[in-house]
Amino acid sequence: MIHPRTLRVDYDRSINVLCVVGSELNVNLYRSAPPNSKFFSVKCTSNVQYSITPPPQETSHLAPIPLNGNSVLLISMSQASQYENDSKLSVRYYGENKEVLGKAVLHLTAVEISLDVDADRDNVVEKNNPNKGSWKWGSNGHGAILLVNCDSERKYWKKPDSEENFVSKVSDLKDMSVMVLRTRGPVKLPEGYKLTMHISQGDAESVRVFRSRSSDKATNSLQGKLYNYFVKDYPLVLSSEVLSQEVPYIGGRAEMNFYVEGLRFPDKDFDGLISINLSLLEPISEGLPETPIFTDKVVFRVAPWIMTPNTLNPVEVFVCSTSDNYQFLKGMKNLVTKSGYKLKICHEYVNRGDRWMQDELEFGYIDSPHQRFPVVLDSPRDGKLLDFPYNELLGPDFGYVTRVAERKDVSSLDSFGNLEVSPPVTVNGKNYPLGRILIGVAFPTATKGRNMTKVVQDFLWAQKVQEPIALFSDWLLVGHIDEFMTFVPAPDRKGFRLLLASPDAGYKLFRGLQKDGHGQAKLFEGLKDEEPITVDDILSHDSFQAENNYVQSCIDWNRDVLKRELGLDEDDIIDLPILFKLEVEEDKTYRAVAFYPDMVNMIVLGKNLGIPKPFGPKVNGRCALEAEMCCLMEGLGLSCTFIDDFASYHKLLGEVHCGSNVLREPFAFKWWNLEM
Amino acid sequence: MIHPRTLRVDYDRSINVLCVVGSELNVNLYRSAPPNSKFFSVKCTSNVQYSITPPPQETSHLAPIPLNGNSVLLISMSQASQYENDSKLSVRYYGENKEVLGKAVLHLTAVEISLDVDADRDNVVEKNNPNKGSWKWGSNGHGAILLVNCDSERKYWKKPDSEENFVSKVSDLKDMSVMVLRTRGPVKLPEGYKLTMHISQGDAESVRVFRSRSSDKATNSLQGKLYNYFVKDYPLVLSSEVLSQEVPYIGGRAEMNFYVEGLRFPDKDFDGLISINLSLLEPISEGLPETPIFTDKVVFRVAPWIMTPNTLNPVEVFVCSTSDNYQFLKGMKNLVTKSGYKLKICHEYVNRGDRWMQDELEFGYIDSPHQRFPVVLDSPRDGKLLDFPYNELLGPDFGYVTRVAERKDVSSLDSFGNLEVSPPVTVNGKNYPLGRILIGVAFPTATKGRNMTKVVQDFLWAQKVQEPIALFSDWLLVGHIDEFMTFVPAPDRKGFRLLLASPDAGYKLFRGLQKDGHGQAKLFEGLKDEEPITVDDILSHDSFQAENNYVQSCIDWNRDVLKRELGLDEDDIIDLPILFKLEVEEDKTYRAVAFYPDMVNMIVLGKNLGIPKPFGPKVNGRCALEAEMCCLMEGLGLSCTFIDDFASYHKLLGEVHCGSNVLREPFAFKWWNLEM
Ligand SMILES: [Ca+2]
Ligand SMILES: [Ca+2]
Ligand SMILES: [Ca+2]
Ligand SMILES: [Ca+2]
Repeated sequence: MIHPRTLRVDYDRSINVLCVVGSELNVNLYRSAPPNSKFFSVKCTSNVQYSITPPPQETSHLAPIPLNGNSVLLISMSQASQYENDSKLSVRYYGENKEVLGKAVLHLTAVEISLDVDADRDNVVEKNNPNKGSWKWGSNGHGAILLVNCDSERKYWKKPDSEENFVSKVSDLKDMSVMVLRTRGPVKLPEGYKLTMHISQGDAESVRVFRSRSSDKATNSLQGKLYNYFVKDYPLVLSSEVLSQEVPYIGGRAEMNFYVEGLRFPDKDFDGLISINLSLLEPISEGLPETPIFTDKVVFRVAPWIMTPNTLNPVEVFVCSTSDNYQFLKGMKNLVTKSGYKLKICHEYVNRGDRWMQDELEFGYIDSPHQRFPVVLDSPRDGKLLDFPYNELLGPDFGYVTRVAERKDVSSLDSFGNLEVSPPVTVNGKNYPLGRILIGVAFPTATKGRNMTKVVQDFLWAQKVQEPIALFSDWLLVGHIDEFMTFVPAPDRKGFRLLLASPDAGYKLFRGLQKDGHGQAKLFEGLKDEEPITVDDILSHDSFQAENNYVQSCIDWNRDVLKRELGLDEDDIIDLPILFKLEVEEDKTYRAVAFYPDMVNMIVLGKNLGIPKPFGPKVNGRCALEAEMCCLMEGLGLSCTFIDDFASYHKLLGEVHCGSNVLREPFAFKWWNLEM
Repeated sequence: MIHPRTLRVDYDRSINVLCVVGSELNVNLYRSAPPNSKFFSVKCTSNVQYSITPPPQETSHLAPIPLNGNSVLLISMSQASQYENDSKLSVRYYGENKEVLGKAVLHLTAVEISLDVDADRDNVVEKNNPNKGSWKWGSNGHGAILLVNCDSERKYWKKPDSEENFVSKVSDLKDMSVMVLRTRGPVKLPEGYKLTMHISQGDAESVRVFRSRSSDKATNSLQGKLYNYFVKDYPLVLSSEVLSQEVPYIGGRAEMNFYVEGLRFPDKDFDGLISINLSLLEPISEGLPETPIFTDKVVFRVAPWIMTPNTLNPVEVFVCSTSDNYQFLKGMKNLVTKSGYKLKICHEYVNRGDRWMQDELEFGYIDSPHQRFPVVLDSPRDGKLLDFPYNELLGPDFGYVTRVAERKDVSSLDSFGNLEVSPPVTVNGKNYPLGRILIGVAFPTATKGRNMTKVVQDFLWAQKVQEPIALFSDWLLVGHIDEFMTFVPAPDRKGFRLLLASPDAGYKLFRGLQKDGHGQAKLFEGLKDEEPITVDDILSHDSFQAENNYVQSCIDWNRDVLKRELGLDEDDIIDLPILFKLEVEEDKTYRAVAFYPDMVNMIVLGKNLGIPKPFGPKVNGRCALEAEMCCLMEGLGLSCTFIDDFASYHKLLGEVHCGSNVLREPFAFKWWNLEM
């Protein structure tokens, strides 16, 4: 709704007035009347409409109307003018005896102005959507969407496009939201009037606006060929340096394209909403500011960064090659090839011996009706892989984002093996069609303890569409949630199962073996530099059982949280037989590590699971742990491949999942259709 | 709803279990069973309830129940134990032929724990309000309220109580929200269990918690007499340094009082909500963190700072005494005394010649069900009155808040004559029962121009309950909205009128005078050092008329915004006959000042208005401007007192309102009853 604008009118003067189609002018007739005026009458040309409040009593069309202290004339125009001042309205004032005391004349010019965006999210910039000035979540919602332009059009000398205040390649326009200024009116605006686009100081930190010059001058024949031409052809309109700038008015029926790029993701101090305004300014005179007489506003929301759970199809698998992980690499190659996905190996001259591909980065994506691409979140962990996300992943249609933390605030819990996401869930009637983010922290009651750094947590919470859950992972020496949990696809129930490491399930299995006469079967058989241990030995140590009871209680605590926060039943959870042991740390606290390869720390590639080979006790020539694992997974139609990561990962306190990363397809569900 | 907690149980062992009344223990029977168990049975004492899922088919009460992979035992207890382990539950496991394979025994102790607040806002801390863990606006809402402890219990060596991390006087407890820890159970908790109160790192910046020691030891007979005793009697529990601390468990049926104080107002980075948690910790063993097995949570919202419009009753009027304002002071004294309010004079040794009492501060208040007091917002203007709010106003039950801006960001628009508030309004069906805050800024389209500093604007917007409106005041040389608008109470319509300065109304009045033969009547007659000017002279200057037309268009722009944002009709507005003139500034821009004393810049004391004496043209011995003003106000039952501020304020570019400030009674309406 456009509200009426008060227009000053003096009697015995004629004024030129510019009126925007769809808006109303409000003339206080009493204020502008000559002294002693008692009556007035109004006349106008056909393109002008008017109404009078309070409505006059007289029925005769042209009879003078009594003038009251509150007589107001409301003027509007129904279509754009072809020529300046092509319409007219006049007010005549009369005295007691209907003698004429004065006359005010308005020469009117009408223009149509609308700043347009794709508010209905169908990738078409419709004309003057009534909802373009607000933003509402949901399939019945509305509001335009902006991407953070965090990829790099250039492959060399690259940096995120959002860090450059010019359009370096025409392909970059695909990542921006189109905004169209549609105008209709005479060839030019009346003298001194102008159009201005403007944003607030707060929003200017988060958005940049370019425009297309092609619509206001002849197309340059070299366009698209040389760097300079892009800068000239897509001039910068608004930025943190320029909050308000005039934009050209093109006569007749015209459209001018603007390109809007987001500069930063939602965060603790930024809710993701941005307004862009277009105003028509009326000149007053030299030394006086022009008055905005009409303002149109559009609203964008910056697309959140979205994580991809194990239930989404893989696109590409990432692992590191090191001097000592040939066995592991061979296993991974076989699995990935068999599964039909691409394997990308990060070589040693890049990884410099840092094999923890899971921990340095998390893959996600951003999505809008006009464009979508993967975005890597770079961890503040910053091991020797620290340059990999920026140097190797950032590129055309591959975005990059990070959060910078102070070194002292970064702990092992900032590795992204400690950042996962659940498949879609419904919890007490509330839908999470994009799942929920999971992180590991210390108990909130802990007086000391490690935590995921606040800047990363703030970032994750601010994305809103995958509301995070904080689990307790500080009981683990390494402290990553992927050491005790993962999700696998399932054909039934909620479409997945939560797999949890379970010492109780481990003890149950080993006791069963003992009972069935396999107490002398050995774990770790045939491993170099590893002392085999029998089932009987394991079961004979009370303190080892006590350690595992503690681990089970820690996992149970998380189990309760996961059941509650993901709305899971017992039948949605599978306990995997995995034992842990406690290690004492410098500060005399005890923390847990896996006793044998931690099978839950797996890679999930569709129906194929790459599982750390547990080297468990053999029964009739077959590893009892592998057999149990296969048995549990086969019911879900999943196929287990056991990968030997013992020397190169397990002994270094990680496993298959820690040593790999998977770029996955995005959700079919669109985040803006979430009901919030 | 408290969610079940998974409990580990081993066969052939008896364990001691602490259970919180109202919570459930979830025992996975299959996981804890001896190998080859096929059946189980459960037995318990009277204070223990249990259920089995899936529900057993057997009808006979004591018959062994078939054991499934998903058999779960849910245990709860209905009332607190009197002694440790006074309840018992046992599970017996059977083999194929119902032979006993093992037995698990639980010795149970029940405690009742609830952390309570005044969630229903009636100033009584009720027991275990089901809504205590969330916050909802409105008369049907819920959620406890916290005040920023921004007054100073001490009158000397004072500073806001929130800046001290101890309770210095017992009176300070009145400003804090009481939180009660209610427990029931045996004399002491089982060995190693403890209660811990904790907050998040983010919330710790905004809240501090003390507790009363009186409930856990004999009352000290000297209590209340010596400083040290307070510190000892109300030990600090939680603060930004201590996020988690053990609190004592008192046996039997006990209540322990905690006192919670807010440390900062809602702002751009703080939504005002704070959670405080209480957890019951279970010991594991040395070197392992205790596990929280039950957590209760309460939520507070920090009360916003609320401004008071002219329609609220005055309490006290503040003015400055200077070497040259005797005339003004005399007029103010008469008016305030006649109106029955207190006048507080800030003497010259304090104001150091700074007479602009309106501009250095804004009065407001904070409110909760348990306490309410005025709070002064100190402007970053910082003229010579800068110390007045802190030194003269801060005190017992008189709070202080400020926002610190960089000098370069502070302009004349940061004076609080540029910060006002409307009376309660309803706009398109939306209620603003506390009115809306009004500030003046430059046009959003301006490429240069003055603004109210961002830190103050952020603060005002974050209070939420009086959603601000930005007006255009940069057209004025001084740039304050009180130069062109005010509100007066009215017996009809919306309960008030908006008064606007109006050059058009001024010209209308002067033209009428001229027409009626008073063209030679003089303004400024009898004023020292002021050249009188006739009505004819005023009307003869076209450029002066043009300047006033511009001023009228600026005011009209604000008029349109005010009508729209406050939901006003024409009849809610009164135009006052006031003329302006433009002055050219150093940067060649023109800005407006009042041509004669600016009558709209008045002080409103109930039905008495203190209006700058305009020194207008006299007709039959009476000032025509005063006559018109009286005529306009008398219809509303308001009485006009004209105060001579010509030499001491008007000539220095301010008037009565700029030179005064009014502390008013708070709204009867409670902010938490707002529907948001
Ligand atoms: Ca790009
Ligand atoms: Ca991860
Ligand atoms: Ca206090
Ligand atoms: Ca004020």
